[in-house]
Amino acid sequence: MVVKVYGTAYASPKRVLACLIEKGIEFEAVPVDLIKGDHRTPEYLKLQPFGAVPVIQDGDYTLYESRAIIRYYAEKYRSHGTDLLGNSIEERGLVEQWLEVEAQNFHPHIYNLSLQILFAPALGFPPDEKLIKESEEKLGKVLDVYEERLSRSKYLAGDFFSLADLSHLPFTQYLVGPMNKEHMIRSRKHVSAWWDEISNRPSWKKVLQL
Amino acid sequence: MVVKVYGTAYASPKRVLACLIEKGIEFEAVPVDLIKGDHRTPEYLKLQPFGAVPVIQDGDYTLYESRAIIRYYAEKYRSHGTDLLGNSIEERGLVEQWLEVEAQNFHPHIYNLSLQILFAPALGFPPDEKLIKESEEKLGKVLDVYEERLSRSKYLAGDFFSLADLSHLPFTQYLVGPMNKEHMIRSRKHVSAWWDEISNRPSWKKVLQL
Repeated sequence: MVVKVYGTAYASPKRVLACLIEKGIEFEAVPVDLIKGDHRTPEYLKLQPFGAVPVIQDGDYTLYESRAIIRYYAEKYRSHGTDLLGNSIEERGLVEQWLEVEAQNFHPHIYNLSLQILFAPALGFPPDEKLIKESEEKLGKVLDVYEERLSRSKYLAGDFFSLADLSHLPFTQYLVGPMNKEHMIRSRKHVSAWWDEISNRPSWKKVLQL
Repeated sequence: MVVKVYGTAYASPKRVLACLIEKGIEFEAVPVDLIKGDHRTPEYLKLQPFGAVPVIQDGDYTLYESRAIIRYYAEKYRSHGTDLLGNSIEERGLVEQWLEVEAQNFHPHIYNLSLQILFAPALGFPPDEKLIKESEEKLGKVLDVYEERLSRSKYLAGDFFSLADLSHLPFTQYLVGPMNKEHMIRSRKHVSAWWDEISNRPSWKKVLQL
């Protein structure tokens, strides 16, 4: 069964692609154009009632929210490809903790930065410079906690690559690339080494080539 | 082993308490006074480097982020008390989807409302009336999606109570109680019935009595 992934041109769906590639699961990309408003059509809203990407369809099973989808495939295909959940319930607890840190502490600030710096022009509003400054400061404080954590373990949840690391890939790629804020990563020694490690995985390189 | 739960006077830690009670796990509440700044002490920041509540300590295992903690206990004690993760990997996928909807779509708006309406005075800033209005409108739209979903299943992830429902309890309790916005729940027939169902569980009543 080939998994259909909707909206793969955008950042959050790339979490799903990285996970499927790590797991060796075949997928088919279904384009969704957010500028044209594909996500506001009645057909799309039946799949994802909030009008967001991604959604997956796997036979007659439909699931949305990128971090839910990656948990689903990491668990369903636990023994295929890379294990992304740790080796014990305690390790999985730490994977969940750092997935939540990504979603609750890291993401809001990096999302605001992406929206204001990369997408404001296309969306037709002027960048909010005050919000950019505040978001960069707050993201910096979050990365200071990461720096301390990554001085004690190679990856966020421990000495194993997991969904917690993978979940950071798409928006951090924006940060070091088109947002021109690579210094936020490079000025922190352990965060920098961690970024090199996770962004050089073959799965992520393949996502970037798609 | 009695689980120590830090910060139980606040909303997010109540997710953890509801889960532990559903699972029949003994716990001890450890007070954290956010007004006094207990969460900014070096000792506390060793447990939770972002200075947030809750944290749990279970023997020598420490975990933070409420939604990570409830997943950990729901999985570790799968066969004790109420099953909170569904009966199959597909059901768990839907639990994860609705947990993410709570965290990403529902929580930001209800959190802004709580902060502005309930905590602005104690924190010494004037309520932002524009943000209150916008947050209420956005939360209403999210609840419209819930209304449609709950017209088709008794609970969010299906016809079984799960972490996805439980995770909504603390902030919705603020909404219908001290925030005086019960009409947002009562004006939606299926959301209203769902709220009665989940807020009348003995576990939640016990949390409110603590």
